[in-house]
Amino acid sequence: MKATATAHTNIALIKYWGKRNESLILPTNSSLSLTLDGFRTTTTVDFRDELSQDTFTLNDEIISGEQYNRVTAFLDLIRRSAGKNNLYAAVQSINEVPTAAGFASSASGFAALAAAGSKSIGLQVTDQELSRLTRQGSGSACRSIYGGFAEWKMGEQADGSDSFAVPVAPTEHWDIRVAAVILSDTMKKVSSREGMKRTVETSPFYSGWIDSIPSDMEQMKKGIANRDFEKVGKIAEANCLKMHATTLGANPPFTYWLDTTLAVMQTVRSMRDKGIAAYFTIDAGPNVKVLYLPEDEKNVEKTLRETPGVTDVILSKSGQGVTYY
Amino acid sequence: MKATATAHTNIALIKYWGKRNESLILPTNSSLSLTLDGFRTTTTVDFRDELSQDTFTLNDEIISGEQYNRVTAFLDLIRRSAGKNNLYAAVQSINEVPTAAGFASSASGFAALAAAGSKSIGLQVTDQELSRLTRQGSGSACRSIYGGFAEWKMGEQADGSDSFAVPVAPTEHWDIRVAAVILSDTMKKVSSREGMKRTVETSPFYSGWIDSIPSDMEQMKKGIANRDFEKVGKIAEANCLKMHATTLGANPPFTYWLDTTLAVMQTVRSMRDKGIAAYFTIDAGPNVKVLYLPEDEKNVEKTLRETPGVTDVILSKSGQGVTYY
Repeated sequence: MKATATAHTNIALIKYWGKRNESLILPTNSSLSLTLDGFRTTTTVDFRDELSQDTFTLNDEIISGEQYNRVTAFLDLIRRSAGKNNLYAAVQSINEVPTAAGFASSASGFAALAAAGSKSIGLQVTDQELSRLTRQGSGSACRSIYGGFAEWKMGEQADGSDSFAVPVAPTEHWDIRVAAVILSDTMKKVSSREGMKRTVETSPFYSGWIDSIPSDMEQMKKGIANRDFEKVGKIAEANCLKMHATTLGANPPFTYWLDTTLAVMQTVRSMRDKGIAAYFTIDAGPNVKVLYLPEDEKNVEKTLRETPGVTDVILSKSGQGVTYY
Repeated sequence: MKATATAHTNIALIKYWGKRNESLILPTNSSLSLTLDGFRTTTTVDFRDELSQDTFTLNDEIISGEQYNRVTAFLDLIRRSAGKNNLYAAVQSINEVPTAAGFASSASGFAALAAAGSKSIGLQVTDQELSRLTRQGSGSACRSIYGGFAEWKMGEQADGSDSFAVPVAPTEHWDIRVAAVILSDTMKKVSSREGMKRTVETSPFYSGWIDSIPSDMEQMKKGIANRDFEKVGKIAEANCLKMHATTLGANPPFTYWLDTTLAVMQTVRSMRDKGIAAYFTIDAGPNVKVLYLPEDEKNVEKTLRETPGVTDVILSKSGQGVTYY
């Protein structure tokens, strides 16, 4: 049966930074994100008897190589769950996540693939089961099952059975906005996978990072429940700075920041000095995402666009979770 | 007896970052520095019976207020050591450390004051005793007693009796150079004293910083002994990045870096990619110091001057320790 699903990417406010199991994609800390509309992947999966292998098209291009292999490896998990190891699928994806925005298109991509794939092969899955499955394709993707705020609980089991995301607050709970600030030079020299691994293995700050998560998580959830923007913003910003601090202690040390990354951070601090509630967060790359409230949108966008080194600013609202068609 | 001494400032290659005792100025970690010529203070102290209070002129200006109080509090230590609590001094200092360079003029200042003051009051002090005394005026100043490379051993005693600097290698051992890169905006929002304190008290990374020092120190001393520039440079750079990482975890978080600080760091990395051995280190402020070897001087200076946001580059060699006149 042909099945189509859409999923959005998400931005972590408490970062996923470190794996305890590389192959099962089990994290060393719980994380929390906001799902964003405007950055989405729509995927159609068609498991059909007559196919002798999987096919994958992305934005109407036939994909082979590494990207194809990741998709078929993930389809293997679905086949195994369904007990249909010899059934192949035609996968068609449309990706509306601009690569330059520095959002992990793998988050929306694997969430949509998991949802459409499960449905096509006839698996009945709960949201938690879907999230757990998605996690094995791309860690942060497991949070994109839900709209609004979601927490990926790291879990404790060695097999990953208790490592999946749960909803924290739906899209409708709070109209919180995110500006993705695109910088002119966005080359990422250390992949997030490699950066995470090197940090876990060599940074003297790694245990401090892990120790600081439970308190950040508790405060962040309180802030979301109370729609306390200052609290949410401050914790998100502090958590991001801690994540990036760990990389400076790695051996060899590295940073995802460019000079322009610092310039945008300074711009955000200056906005706050002028009474505009804006906070930044940064993933494993140089681009900056800025959290703000609807009433400040024009001001925030204008100020960010005027910052030297900024080539584009893409605004987004809180988005919905996985949707089936 | 009138006595005059000159001391130079120093740049830490393994940073002093945190106090275990604020009033005695006892550090939480040992540190290592290079004394620099070109940035010096010359101080004349004249303890005289006829004076009813201390006087202090700096670059021919009469100083009062906070700066005066620090000087007289330090002279109290000297008076106490000499058993002459009612003897006052006329102090004249000439400071040749450009403030904008972001070097701690307190390092050369207190080393020269300790040396000239001790001599003027008639105290016979060894270098270690002088270093221990100097430490109580300004922590990092205790390393400026010696030329070349010096290690401030943190010590273990509660009274600070074993916390002083010792020589590691004299100026003549190795002609290593430092470029002080002056940035256009050098406002320091968090003093090093306050930054250190906040980091010790609130950063989850502080224990990781402390734990990483013994290995850095051992490797750094090996590198210096073998005149292994790559090793010395790499450790200095990594140690500085770790120090700055700890501030990102403080509550509230802070950084001494400007966008232009990052730009100079990138310039230094680019020089290395082109085969020029250059490494950066950064104290508790935005300016960057670049370590290089004599043969690369022209190249390094030119490249740094061409970096946007750089307003001046001041070159320095390894300098001598305290000198009496």
